[in-house]
Order: sequence, then C-alpha cells, then structure tokens
Amino acid sequence: MKDVPVLIDTDVHNALRSAKDLLPFLPKVWHSQWISSGIGVGAVYTSPIGGSRKDAVPEQGGSPGSDPHFLLKHHMDAYGIDYAILTGSGLLVLSLQPDPDYGNVIAAACNDWMAEHWLAVSPRYKGSIFINASDPQAAAKEIHRIGHHPDMVQVIMASAARFPYGQRFYHPIYEAAEQYGLAVAIHPGTEGRGISGAPTPSGYPTRYMEWHNILPTNYMTHINSLVCEGVFEKFPRLRFVAIEGGIAWMPHLMWRMDKNYKALRDSVPWLKRLPSEYIREHIRLTTQPIEEPDDPEQLLQILKMIDAEKTVMFSSDYPHWDFDNPRMALPPMPKPLKQRILAGTAMDLYDLHKRPEARP
Amino acid sequence: MKDVPVLIDTDVHNALRSAKDLLPFLPKVWHSQWISSGIGVGAVYTSPIGGSRKDAVPEQGGSPGSDPHFLLKHHMDAYGIDYAILTGSGLLVLSLQPDPDYGNVIAAACNDWMAEHWLAVSPRYKGSIFINASDPQAAAKEIHRIGHHPDMVQVIMASAARFPYGQRFYHPIYEAAEQYGLAVAIHPGTEGRGISGAPTPSGYPTRYMEWHNILPTNYMTHINSLVCEGVFEKFPRLRFVAIEGGIAWMPHLMWRMDKNYKALRDSVPWLKRLPSEYIREHIRLTTQPIEEPDDPEQLLQILKMIDAEKTVMFSSDYPHWDFDNPRMALPPMPKPLKQRILAGTAMDLYDLHKRPEARP
Repeated sequence: MKDVPVLIDTDVHNALRSAKDLLPFLPKVWHSQWISSGIGVGAVYTSPIGGSRKDAVPEQGGSPGSDPHFLLKHHMDAYGIDYAILTGSGLLVLSLQPDPDYGNVIAAACNDWMAEHWLAVSPRYKGSIFINASDPQAAAKEIHRIGHHPDMVQVIMASAARFPYGQRFYHPIYEAAEQYGLAVAIHPGTEGRGISGAPTPSGYPTRYMEWHNILPTNYMTHINSLVCEGVFEKFPRLRFVAIEGGIAWMPHLMWRMDKNYKALRDSVPWLKRLPSEYIREHIRLTTQPIEEPDDPEQLLQILKMIDAEKTVMFSSDYPHWDFDNPRMALPPMPKPLKQRILAGTAMDLYDLHKRPEARP
Repeated sequence: MKDVPVLIDTDVHNALRSAKDLLPFLPKVWHSQWISSGIGVGAVYTSPIGGSRKDAVPEQGGSPGSDPHFLLKHHMDAYGIDYAILTGSGLLVLSLQPDPDYGNVIAAACNDWMAEHWLAVSPRYKGSIFINASDPQAAAKEIHRIGHHPDMVQVIMASAARFPYGQRFYHPIYEAAEQYGLAVAIHPGTEGRGISGAPTPSGYPTRYMEWHNILPTNYMTHINSLVCEGVFEKFPRLRFVAIEGGIAWMPHLMWRMDKNYKALRDSVPWLKRLPSEYIREHIRLTTQPIEEPDDPEQLLQILKMIDAEKTVMFSSDYPHWDFDNPRMALPPMPKPLKQRILAGTAMDLYDLHKRPEARP
C-alpha cells in the first residue's frame, strides 16, 4: 500500500452530541442564551425528508455525526477514507447572528470543542476553524488564537453573507488565514437566514427544493467578487474552497468574466491576469452534490473545462440526506484525474501528503 | 433566395428619440412627472465605457437606436437581418417604480409608441409588449388591450423583480400571454434598481463589471422558480425567453434540478416530468453576450448539452457596447444547428415563417 492518501473527504459534518458540549468552552454569561435558544437564527427552509441519513444515528444514540468513534467506523473505515475535513453541523449560521459578541464567543467555543472532542480522537480528523465573518477583526483574532493548531487546516464560514466576500470589509480574515497557511472555505445552507439578505436577487424562493437548487448562485457571487476585488493579488497565497456548491457552472462564470474583462479591465486595474486564471489557481471546488447528466461524458467535458485535476476535490457531505458515495459519485474517468479528485488536490491544499500514522 | 428568414435578431434596442415622444400616449396628469424625472428609478451601476456603440448614433443625431430608418440601414441591412425583435431601451425599469399607477401608464404609452413609431415603419420590426410586472392584474389588462396587434410577438419585463417569476403573484401575466400566443421575455440590467432587492444573495457587488458578470444568476433564479412552481403545467403553451442572460450555466441548472427532483419530488407533486424536460420545451435563450472559451469546441459541447437547436436564438443586443456581430459571434458549427440558432427557433417561436414581403 502506498504511503500517500488515496481518499480524502473534504466535507464531513461532525455534530455536537448536545448543546451542553459547548458549555465548558463558553463564558458563563452566555450559557443561558446558548441553552435556551442556541445560535438563535431560525431556518427559513427545511428539507421535507429530514436533513440527515437515518442510518447515520450513532449506536449509542444522538444526532448523526455526533460520535467520533462511530463516524470513523460507519463512514471512514467503510469507504477507506484517509482523512476527513470536518465542517461542523448547523454552526455556520453564527455569522448571521445580529449580535457580534455572541457570534464571536460561539465561534471560539466551537473551535475548542472541535480540538478537544474530535481532533484529539484521531489523526484522521482535520478541523475547520469557525469564525464570525460578520466581525472580521474579531475573526482574525480567533484565527490568531487557534491557527497554530496542527490539525486545523482551514477557516470556514457560511456562504450566506451581507456583502460579497471579495469586499475589503472581509480582508482581515484573508490576511490572517494566509499567515497561517490556512485555506478559507465557505459552505452553503444558511442563505436567507438571520442578517443575510434574500437567497436570490429576486427575493425568497418558495420551497426547500427550489432554494436548494439555486444555492450555487451565491457561490458564483462570491467567486466573482473575490476575483474582481483583487483579493488574490493582495493575498497571493490564499486558497478559497467552495464546498458543496456544485461545479458545472464554473465554465460559464470563467468565460463571462474573461469576456467582460477584455472590455472593462480599466475598472479593475489591479488585475494582472484573466479572471479565469485567478479562479484556476485560487479556487477549489468540492464534488458533492455532483451534477449527474444522463450522459456521463458531458460531466467529463465540464471537468476538462475547469482543469478539474487542479480544482476539484471529492466530498461526501456525510451524514446529510444528499450524501455522495465515494465509490459511485464520480463517472468513469482517467485514473490520474480520479486520483487528483479523490485525494491529490486535497493533499496539496491541506498539506496531507502522508497517510495518518495511526488508525485508532 | 429561399422564402424563409435566414437571420432573426431577437434583441434589438429601439430607443425614444426624446422623452417627448411618449407624451401623446400618456395621460396629461403624468406629463410633468415624466418630463422632469422619466421613470424615476436611478441606475446603481453604469458602464464606465458608456452603454452604447459610438457608431450607432443616427445620422440625424439622437440616441443610438432612436431612428427606425437608420437602424434598418446601419444594422439590419448591413447584416442581412430579416426581422428584429424590438425590446426598447431603458424602459423595463418601469416595473420597479414604487407607484404602480405610474408604471402602468408608462407601459401602455410605450406600447402605443412602439406600434406607431416602429411597427408601422417596417414589417421587419416585431414588437415586445411592455408591462408593469409589479401589478400583474394591470399587466394582464394591458396584454388584452394590445395583444391582438399582429406585429407584437411577445411580452417583456425586467429580470429584476421582487419575487421569483414562478410565484402565483405573476400568473395573470402568463395566462394573458398564453391566450394571445405571446412569448414572455425577460431582459437584464435593472438588477438592484428601484423596488427590486440587492443584485445578489450577498448584497451589492462593487462595480459595474462585477455586477454585469453575475446577472445570469437572476436568470437561473427565475427559470428554477418557473419550473418548480409548475407554471408550465398550468400554462402548457407558454414559452419564456431569457434574453441576454448567457447560456453556459444551463447544463448545471438542469442537472442540479433533476438530481434534487429525484429526492424531493414529493414537495412539487404538480410536476409530471423532470425539471430539465420543462426547460428544454419552454425556455428559450438568446446568444448575446455569448460565452467565448479559448477552445470553441467547448461551447459546442455546451450547446449540445442544452439541445441548442431547439433552445437558443441569435441576438446582437444592438446598439449596446457589448454587441455581438452575427457574422462572428458563433463558433464554427454544423450548418443545421447554425440555421436553427440564426433563425429557425425564433421563426417557430414568433411565427415568422416567411420573409417580410416588403423592405421596409
């Protein structure tokens, strides 16, 4: 067996067993608010078939994804996954809390919980640092507080936001992340909640399915903004991970941006290359929920258009309802491309070049 | 020479020569408001290189697109265009006026101006009926008032809107359009103006280029909504034209909708087919600004994914800055596909099976 990872899952949702798990890490003044109302920003859209796989409830009970030992067995060993990038469960909405102080302490508590309850359990778990993106100065401080942790590999924030993520308001986050060599990731699902605006340019979709269908447009929004605002010129080592936002829209976005750039480049003089070149170098997409055309060859054509061997990473979204099975998610494709998607690109991005030494 | 049209331009912007052109068609009580402030909803984003081609100013002076005789010569004869579908210039924002009464009278005045100043000039001009989409009952009345006009071929509204266009609020518009065999078209460019919301799920982009890059996400929003809300089951003869919104995002949208439909169809029980099947049958896209990958073969792959021979129609966007030249816009492709895009699909949609008898 080779010494390099063969399968890295870049979106695994680990959950709190109970709200009480967070109390040891949360200043006492916030305890009653946390216990009585959690983050306190209600869902606008909920899946009519439930949010999680029903077989993912741990043997000892509790929410799917809440038992680190069961998750190793039920998901990682079952599919031969070397590393899971943990992204939490229902926590990203903390950035959409109107009270920035509350958002900040929840973020810090989640990070300490992640380190103690998960990263300490197995070297196969790698953590995402929660931040309150609505208070970027505080978010940068949090990155400085925990960014040195050897098993924290990225910063994560909700894709729902008040402003497009390229705007200078957010730059302190990128500056801190770059300093620690951490990727910055976004994850969807909070669109329309809390202090974020409507989930579309035309207001609120009607139902969960319609809302879920259209989430990638917010990804297009952020990537467009990051490039146009010159974030990747200002932070040249920054990598931005667009988790669970689909992939097949990327050719359109790159081509449209390049075409407009040719006529309108005067308005973005800080850009030194075509927008698509920044995207290929700095943006990483994760696969789940991967598009499934009737003709799988068409997905391969899309993968080629976006240099998928450099830009796309496998994710399962375990234990959510629309989980993609790593053995079935990808269409038939050349082995080198498959290796890059299943492990190679994540290996490079997160510096996971060796398999975990111990498998508890 | 064959008797069928060889080139139909599905997006030509005809303009008012002067605000005064509208006065004969506008009730007197609104004259001073119209003359002093026009539609009265300012632009949020403006092109730093101007909105129109500088060579499109008519010989007699005036705004580009404002002289029907010059337009015939400068654009239609120059490229051998049989028919132009006229879409107006800067008028669609009328739906984003807070006062519905004002929006309604402007829409009616624009239609009478279109009929008298343009459709009467040449049989090569075909008109779009302006409506105030924010007052759908009044919009339906306006369609009943003018929908019988033999040279009006579609209803047009701004893509910027307060709600996604599938919602039942808008159904009176579709009912009336279907009754007259009129297509319903949307055109971009008013996103963020008036009573519409922010142009993205994450608020306001920074600059015109960034805003322009991301406009197609609003198209994805509306098409998703129209399908999920069952509009095409309720109005089976309705055709919806997505003008100037790009095309290469369509495979992603169709595949994502179909994948979600398989799991979530219980929530949209009125749908009897895959979402992509409704899209292929009922949605028409126009080409400009067509995406231009380095490898033109990739655009052909996209065209194949969306059955372009049935769904895509040529448009130039004359006289706007990002005009596409009909002789250069399309990559090399099989002749039958090219014929469908340049004329065939528009011929079917707008019932323009014969060349105009007289020129002009």
